[in-house]
Amino acid sequence: MADAPQGTLPVPPATAAKLTPAEKFQLITQNLGEVLGAEQLKALLEERDLVAYWGTAPTGRPHLGYFVPLAKIADFLTANVEVKVLLADVHAFLDNLKAPIELVEARVDYYRRLIIAVFRSLNLPLDRLKFVVGSSYQYTANYNLDKYKMSAITTEHDARKAGAEVVKQVSSPLLSGLLYPLLQALDEEYLGVDFQFGGVDQRKIFTYAEAYLPKIGYKKRSHLMNLMVPGLSGGKMSSSDPNSKIDFLDSPSAVKSKIQKAHCAPGEVEGNGVLAFIRHVVVPIGELFKGQGRADARPWVEGDAPADAVFTIKGDPKFGGSVRHFRTVDELDDAYAKGEVHPGDLKSATVQAINALLAPIQAEFNGSQEFQEAEKRAYPVEVKQVPAKKKVKKYTPKPEHLKTPEEKARDAEKAGLDETAQLREAVVETLSA
Amino acid sequence: MADAPQGTLPVPPATAAKLTPAEKFQLITQNLGEVLGAEQLKALLEERDLVAYWGTAPTGRPHLGYFVPLAKIADFLTANVEVKVLLADVHAFLDNLKAPIELVEARVDYYRRLIIAVFRSLNLPLDRLKFVVGSSYQYTANYNLDKYKMSAITTEHDARKAGAEVVKQVSSPLLSGLLYPLLQALDEEYLGVDFQFGGVDQRKIFTYAEAYLPKIGYKKRSHLMNLMVPGLSGGKMSSSDPNSKIDFLDSPSAVKSKIQKAHCAPGEVEGNGVLAFIRHVVVPIGELFKGQGRADARPWVEGDAPADAVFTIKGDPKFGGSVRHFRTVDELDDAYAKGEVHPGDLKSATVQAINALLAPIQAEFNGSQEFQEAEKRAYPVEVKQVPAKKKVKKYTPKPEHLKTPEEKARDAEKAGLDETAQLREAVVETLSA
Repeated sequence: MADAPQGTLPVPPATAAKLTPAEKFQLITQNLGEVLGAEQLKALLEERDLVAYWGTAPTGRPHLGYFVPLAKIADFLTANVEVKVLLADVHAFLDNLKAPIELVEARVDYYRRLIIAVFRSLNLPLDRLKFVVGSSYQYTANYNLDKYKMSAITTEHDARKAGAEVVKQVSSPLLSGLLYPLLQALDEEYLGVDFQFGGVDQRKIFTYAEAYLPKIGYKKRSHLMNLMVPGLSGGKMSSSDPNSKIDFLDSPSAVKSKIQKAHCAPGEVEGNGVLAFIRHVVVPIGELFKGQGRADARPWVEGDAPADAVFTIKGDPKFGGSVRHFRTVDELDDAYAKGEVHPGDLKSATVQAINALLAPIQAEFNGSQEFQEAEKRAYPVEVKQVPAKKKVKKYTPKPEHLKTPEEKARDAEKAGLDETAQLREAVVETLSA
Repeated sequence: MADAPQGTLPVPPATAAKLTPAEKFQLITQNLGEVLGAEQLKALLEERDLVAYWGTAPTGRPHLGYFVPLAKIADFLTANVEVKVLLADVHAFLDNLKAPIELVEARVDYYRRLIIAVFRSLNLPLDRLKFVVGSSYQYTANYNLDKYKMSAITTEHDARKAGAEVVKQVSSPLLSGLLYPLLQALDEEYLGVDFQFGGVDQRKIFTYAEAYLPKIGYKKRSHLMNLMVPGLSGGKMSSSDPNSKIDFLDSPSAVKSKIQKAHCAPGEVEGNGVLAFIRHVVVPIGELFKGQGRADARPWVEGDAPADAVFTIKGDPKFGGSVRHFRTVDELDDAYAKGEVHPGDLKSATVQAINALLAPIQAEFNGSQEFQEAEKRAYPVEVKQVPAKKKVKKYTPKPEHLKTPEEKARDAEKAGLDETAQLREAVVETLSA
C-alpha cells in the first residue's frame, strides 16, 4: 500500500486513487473463502478498474446478515471497483405470486435506500455503486433468446447440480429453481461485469456460469466467494429464522434482547454466530474506519486500548472479570475457546457494536420522511384476522408397517409437496443470503 | 347440413356460411382421436366462428406426413374456423444452434409457401388461414414474464409428465425440453385461440395447458387430437426416418420407388402405413372434393365407380385380379385383412393417389421462381467433403461382467449423452409431427 498507515486496511477513499493494481487486488480478494479466476482480474487491474455484481432479491425485510456481504463490498468500493447491486425484483415477485408487483417495487425502493444508508454510515464513496433492477433487462428479447439458448444446452442434471447447494435437493424441484443458474450466469453478461460476488454456497452456480457462458459466445467471468457465516442462533443466517434475525430498524433494547437469546455456548467457536459476526462484520468495519482515519468511531474498542486492538471485552467486575483487548479475531476466538471469555460479556460487547453500527442508519431513516414512507409502503402493517376457534383434530399417524401401499404413496407425495414449498423458499434465499 | 348433397362432407366453401353451428361442430370434430372441452366449443359456436392453432417447427423438409394434419385442418377451414399456423422458428433455431438463424428464416418462408400450396391444391379458402412466426411474440416482455410465472408453479415432475409422450424420457433431459409444455400452453393465450389441434401424443401437454393456464389467470382452451398415423415404413411418421419420408417435391417415379419399399405385410392392417395414409389423407380429401362438387378430381376412384365409392383398387389381370370399389375405409381394411387385396395392387393405387395429390403442388412450385428460390435458400445443397480414408478401428465391447466400476460408470454416462441427443430430436418432432 502506497501511503496508508501500516496495518490498517482498507484505505480511506481519498487514497484509493493512489493504490497500485497489486494493492487493489489484495484489497478486493482479502478475507474471502475462495477466488476463481484471480489471474484474469490481476491482468485486468493492470489496465483499468473492475466492475462487479452482487445480487439480492427484495423479498422479506433485510436483516443484520446483510452486513456480511456489505462489509466485503466496502472493500470493493474502497478499491475503486464499480459495484452493481442487482435488485432481483422478478425473482422476488415470482417467489410469491400472491404478493402484488407493487409491493415488490416498494421493497426494491426500500432495499436501495437501506443499502445506501449502510454504505453512507461506513463513509464510503457512493459514486461507484450502481443499482440495477432485474426487470429493467430480464424481460428483453435478447435476454429471453439467450435464456432459450442456455436451456437448449443445459440438461436438467447439470442445472440441478449447479443449484445443489442453494436449491434444496428434492425429487421434483420447480422449473424456476432449475432456471436459476442460467439466469444468474446471464446476469453477468447483461450487467457487463468482470466478476460476481456471493457466498461459497454459490460455488456450483459460479462454475456453471464459467462453463456455459462461453458456450453461447460470452466471456467467462471471475468469481469471488465469501465464507458462509452462521446466524446468531447458530444455523444459517436466514430471514425465515426469527431468532436469527435482527432488523436494521430494531431498537437498542430489541437488539439486546435478541442477542441475549442467541446461541453462544461457552468455549464453542465453531458455528458461533456471535463470534462470526464480530469476525466478518465488526472487525472488518473497524479496520475500514481506521483506514479512514476514524479509529475513534469504534465503540467496540475501548478508548484506552492499544492502537492495534480490534475488539474489547469487559468482564463483569462482580464476577472478577477484567477488560481485555484483542489484536486479532483469532486471538478472541482462542480466548473464548479456552473459556477465558464469558458468553455474557461477549454478548454485551456485541450488543454495543451492533447498536453502534445501526445508529447512523437509523438516524438517516428517522431523518428522512421519504425513507420512512418507503418502509411503510414496502411492509404495510398486516391486519391480522383472529381466526374463529377451530376444534383441533388430534391426529395419530398410522404406524408405517400397518399402512397400505396406497397410503404410503400418498404420504410420499405429500412429503414431496412440502419439499417443493421449502424449495421455493430456498431458491429466494440464494440471492438474499 | 343445410343444403349440401347428402353423404358428402365437408361442404364447398361457398356453402360454409350457411352451415348451422351444430353442422360446423360436427365438421370440426369429425375423424378425431379425442376432443377435450367439446361443450365449450359448442357454446362458442352459437355466438361466433372459432379460432384454432396448430404448430410446426420448420426444421427438416416437410414430408408427406404433413398431409395428415393438413387434411384435418381442411375441415376447420371449411367450417370457417380461423386457423393460425405457428411457425415455431425459435424452437427450430434452438434445436440446432449450429444452424444460423438465416437458414431457419428461409425455412419458415418455405414452410409457409408449401402449406399455402397444399391448401390451394385442395381448393380451400385461404382468407381464414394465418401464419404466425414464433419469434414475433415469444421474445416479448409479457411472454417472458408469463414464462417465469409458469416456471414458478410447475415442478420438474409435472413438466416431465406433460412431455412424457413427446419428449423422450431420459434421466437427464435438457431444460428446453422441460420448458416445452409451458411454452405450448402460453402460445394458446398469445395466439388468442379457442382450441389447439395436434396429435394424441400431445394429450398430456394439452391437459397441462388446461390445468395451468387458469393458474396464471388465463382461460382454459379446448383441445382436438388427431389419431397417430404410422409412417409408410410402419413406425412413427418422421422426418428422421428416410424410408418413411416422401418429399412434397419427389418425382412420380421417386414416389413409386419409395412406396414399393414401404412396409405393407399381406393381411396386416394394424400399423400399416399405406392403409393409414389412405384412411387419414386420401379418403378425407376425396370427400372434400366431392363436397366441393369436384368428385372427378379423384384419380384414386375409377371413373365407372358408383357415386358413393371412396377408393378403387385394380387387381393385376395377369394374376386374375379384378377392379374393386370401396364405399368406406373400413370396407377396404376388411378386404385387406381377409387377403382379398394384394399389397402390390394397394401400393399401385396409393402411388397414383399420392402423385395426384402432389401434382398441383409441384405445378405451383415449378411455376413460381420465388417458391423455387425459397426452397434453395432453405435447403442449400451441401458440399459433401469426402473424408480421407481412415483405418476403421474394430471395436469389440468388453463383456459387462468383466468391466470395472469406473468403466461401467463411463458407459452409463455415455448412454446418457446419447439419450440427450435423441431427446433434442424428439423435442422438435413434437411440433413437426
